[in-house]
Amino acid sequence: MSKGLPKRSEDYSLWYNELVKRADLAENSAVRGCMVIKPYGYSIWEKMQAELDRMFKETGHTNAYFPLFIPKSYLSKEASHVEGFAKECAVVTHYRLKNSEDGKGVVVDPEAKLEEELIVRPTSETVIWSTYKNWIQSYRDLPLLVNQWANVVRWEMRTRLFLRTAEFLWQEGHTAHATKQEAIDETVQMLNVYATFAESFMALPVVKGVKTPNERFAGAEDTYCIEAMMQDGKALQAGTSHFLGQNFAKAFDVKFATKEGGLDYVWGTSWGVSTRLMGALIMAHSDDNGLVLPPKLAPIQVVIVPIFKSDEELDRISEKAKEIVSKLRKLGVSVHFDHRDTHKPGWKFAEYELKGVPLRIAMGPRDLENNTIELARRDTLTKETINLNEIEIDSFIVAKLEEIQTTIYQKAFDFRTTHTTEVNSWEEFQDVIENKGGFVSAHWDGSSETEDKIKELTKATIRCIPLDQKEEQGTCVFTGNSSKGRVLFARAY
Amino acid sequence: MSKGLPKRSEDYSLWYNELVKRADLAENSAVRGCMVIKPYGYSIWEKMQAELDRMFKETGHTNAYFPLFIPKSYLSKEASHVEGFAKECAVVTHYRLKNSEDGKGVVVDPEAKLEEELIVRPTSETVIWSTYKNWIQSYRDLPLLVNQWANVVRWEMRTRLFLRTAEFLWQEGHTAHATKQEAIDETVQMLNVYATFAESFMALPVVKGVKTPNERFAGAEDTYCIEAMMQDGKALQAGTSHFLGQNFAKAFDVKFATKEGGLDYVWGTSWGVSTRLMGALIMAHSDDNGLVLPPKLAPIQVVIVPIFKSDEELDRISEKAKEIVSKLRKLGVSVHFDHRDTHKPGWKFAEYELKGVPLRIAMGPRDLENNTIELARRDTLTKETINLNEIEIDSFIVAKLEEIQTTIYQKAFDFRTTHTTEVNSWEEFQDVIENKGGFVSAHWDGSSETEDKIKELTKATIRCIPLDQKEEQGTCVFTGNSSKGRVLFARAY
Ligand SMILES: [Zn+2]
Ligand SMILES: [Zn+2]
Repeated sequence: MSKGLPKRSEDYSLWYNELVKRADLAENSAVRGCMVIKPYGYSIWEKMQAELDRMFKETGHTNAYFPLFIPKSYLSKEASHVEGFAKECAVVTHYRLKNSEDGKGVVVDPEAKLEEELIVRPTSETVIWSTYKNWIQSYRDLPLLVNQWANVVRWEMRTRLFLRTAEFLWQEGHTAHATKQEAIDETVQMLNVYATFAESFMALPVVKGVKTPNERFAGAEDTYCIEAMMQDGKALQAGTSHFLGQNFAKAFDVKFATKEGGLDYVWGTSWGVSTRLMGALIMAHSDDNGLVLPPKLAPIQVVIVPIFKSDEELDRISEKAKEIVSKLRKLGVSVHFDHRDTHKPGWKFAEYELKGVPLRIAMGPRDLENNTIELARRDTLTKETINLNEIEIDSFIVAKLEEIQTTIYQKAFDFRTTHTTEVNSWEEFQDVIENKGGFVSAHWDGSSETEDKIKELTKATIRCIPLDQKEEQGTCVFTGNSSKGRVLFARAY
Repeated sequence: MSKGLPKRSEDYSLWYNELVKRADLAENSAVRGCMVIKPYGYSIWEKMQAELDRMFKETGHTNAYFPLFIPKSYLSKEASHVEGFAKECAVVTHYRLKNSEDGKGVVVDPEAKLEEELIVRPTSETVIWSTYKNWIQSYRDLPLLVNQWANVVRWEMRTRLFLRTAEFLWQEGHTAHATKQEAIDETVQMLNVYATFAESFMALPVVKGVKTPNERFAGAEDTYCIEAMMQDGKALQAGTSHFLGQNFAKAFDVKFATKEGGLDYVWGTSWGVSTRLMGALIMAHSDDNGLVLPPKLAPIQVVIVPIFKSDEELDRISEKAKEIVSKLRKLGVSVHFDHRDTHKPGWKFAEYELKGVPLRIAMGPRDLENNTIELARRDTLTKETINLNEIEIDSFIVAKLEEIQTTIYQKAFDFRTTHTTEVNSWEEFQDVIENKGGFVSAHWDGSSETEDKIKELTKATIRCIPLDQKEEQGTCVFTGNSSKGRVLFARAY
């Protein structure tokens, strides 16, 4: 709290790193690439989890838990999966330590070598489909709609808190279906669940689309995704939903007796979002004063700070404050009355601004006399004096929180709109990517080579082929070959 | 469902294993010692988590998340901790795989060897105290009251579903305090939280006590525990709460500026319960027909099974059933109307009995005429016909669920009472341990040698020195040396 945050305009990346640490969201641990999610950060993640979990259950899914470890041989069973996942991961080779001979510590016991190495799950398709083989015999066992909340590990070389860490927390849904259409419908349904969650709770507008083969999940037939835009104009993939076809069913020999008396491979999907969403939430809305949280995900929605010089003043303010607290809690508002005398009001104001508390109420002796409060909005940094004789404080606050939620969304939406550019020439493409940033909507000839080349030259990738893509005859911005519609390019996290 | 469960009286151990699998609670995975927690089992665990989490938060704790991996050297920092924990654990030595030369799979890349091996956490004291060092500078930073929900791994040689698995799920609380007394109070408070949870939600009576030095957590000054009794007379440790003294603070150099201007090491506690509680829940209450669940932890509290021959009958029953469903849901009762026509009522009855649903309502055409239902209790296996003209079905069911919760607890309590035996001679001790089982309350001279010897001869261990131990002069049941009070012995899981 001693000095301000770096400014976004000066060093966006440093601003992000510092904000994550100073707002008590997360920090690096002693283990390379693994983060500690601090209590305040974790409480935001818990709110995300609660909403997502509710949405998963409302769409018929149940939770389960599968092993952390995957036998090495499993990874090779689905050919393209191993190419995408097997390489950078944590490998368990031994199961025992022993005292070192110098008596100064412990060493790996060479006699406790595993016959087959175990991989710490980077994702669980293989171990789950090997289990589903025993759970699925007949069409009566389908659909199987299972989700898991878990930690996963991918050995990343360059890591950033929340955005890319070796260990992260996520949920992974894994479903099995009797028909192709049903599996596709599930894939799209979960994409929509993610989009609704991002927009309604995170106040984060997203583009729904399909990945190109280059960016597809290793082992999927199709990868659907939601793409969001950060304040520096870079894209962030916020969630993916994969149609797996019969790939994993074939790899793990999962067949079922059909209604018609035949035998067929099961159709699969998988879908996931992770603590990366925390990074998206922070980057999309926060400002140079600190976090800006949408009220629906704020652990504290309203803070009340008393301004007092004596115990007697604090007592009188507390009485009033507690009335407000009690009214707000009845309406389900999360409110905190910070009556500590160890910190001054100014310090508290800065602290709750840094932490992104949507509404701050200040109450001093003068307010008591006039029956007023001072109400400050975190998103707009505006203040107003509210006369409690004239308004119902509880419904007023609830309405204000809703307004803030909408305003934050609209601001992000407007930013995205002004940072989405249709381009029609290669020069324009390069110029926009380099100087303006954001999404570039351009014609592409559909070839992986072109995509690779564009990435090599500009670091921009195809974020997705939007689901609402219009049919529009055109020519590829790079090769001039024919194209049937625009796709979204961007530099991305 | 094709044949009944093994009987408890014939093979308790086989009964347990079969019940866990057939009731869809858990199963072994392809990875030795790691279990898959199936959706139904996981939904019970979720209910446990929700209640415990609420109780932790009510006592001022917040959740956070710490890394899965622990640098090997950390384990050696607390001398007795390494003796207790470092040995049997999963060791990560490499961070990359590569394609094998024969092209048939993947092998560990020898060039990707970690400089320092990482241990998959068996418990997180070391990694958490190394973090606390940065979080704690002054008494103002204390107390630090943090909990983590996580998976942990201990390489067990003989595993059993829920009771002892290589990977298991748990919560681990880790708190830091300015004074010894405050840390002891926290340790006892959390022991009481666990006892309340076990008794009020799991319907499981527990003895609160302190472990002997032999059974103490590696690194603790004192280990408090709750001990429960299973239907085979064996004890099961259901939760532990450790007073760590300043041991971990000293190992990781965590000091704080005191209010008085000095510098002191921080006092610590840690406490945990795990998916082992699932084993306790199953073993304590279930019978030869399947699971018996206390209503407060039952994912489905009431199931309604229609008995019908035609679609028209089903329609009429459904109308009535849906009224009941809606009334019950309004009171927060979890109710499932199983109107599948793919399974016969008898099959459904057996299925919900196996799954431990506390109340089953059956409704046939005759019931419609008479405005009655048939209500069956899972715990007592009794049935009664209820006239809906005479009772308010919703409040009746709620009261019945409460009655079941109490009855299940009382049954376990009575069993424990009749299986707790005061013995005063070594012959009696051996006889009771061998033939009757249960808790044996006996005088012990307080020495570890005696404890070891008794264990060697009878496989009974001191479960705890009960907190409500009466001062009573006596002589050790084994050595005849003097003793100041009775302790509880038992064979244990
Ligand atoms: Zn996309
Ligand atoms: Zn005990």
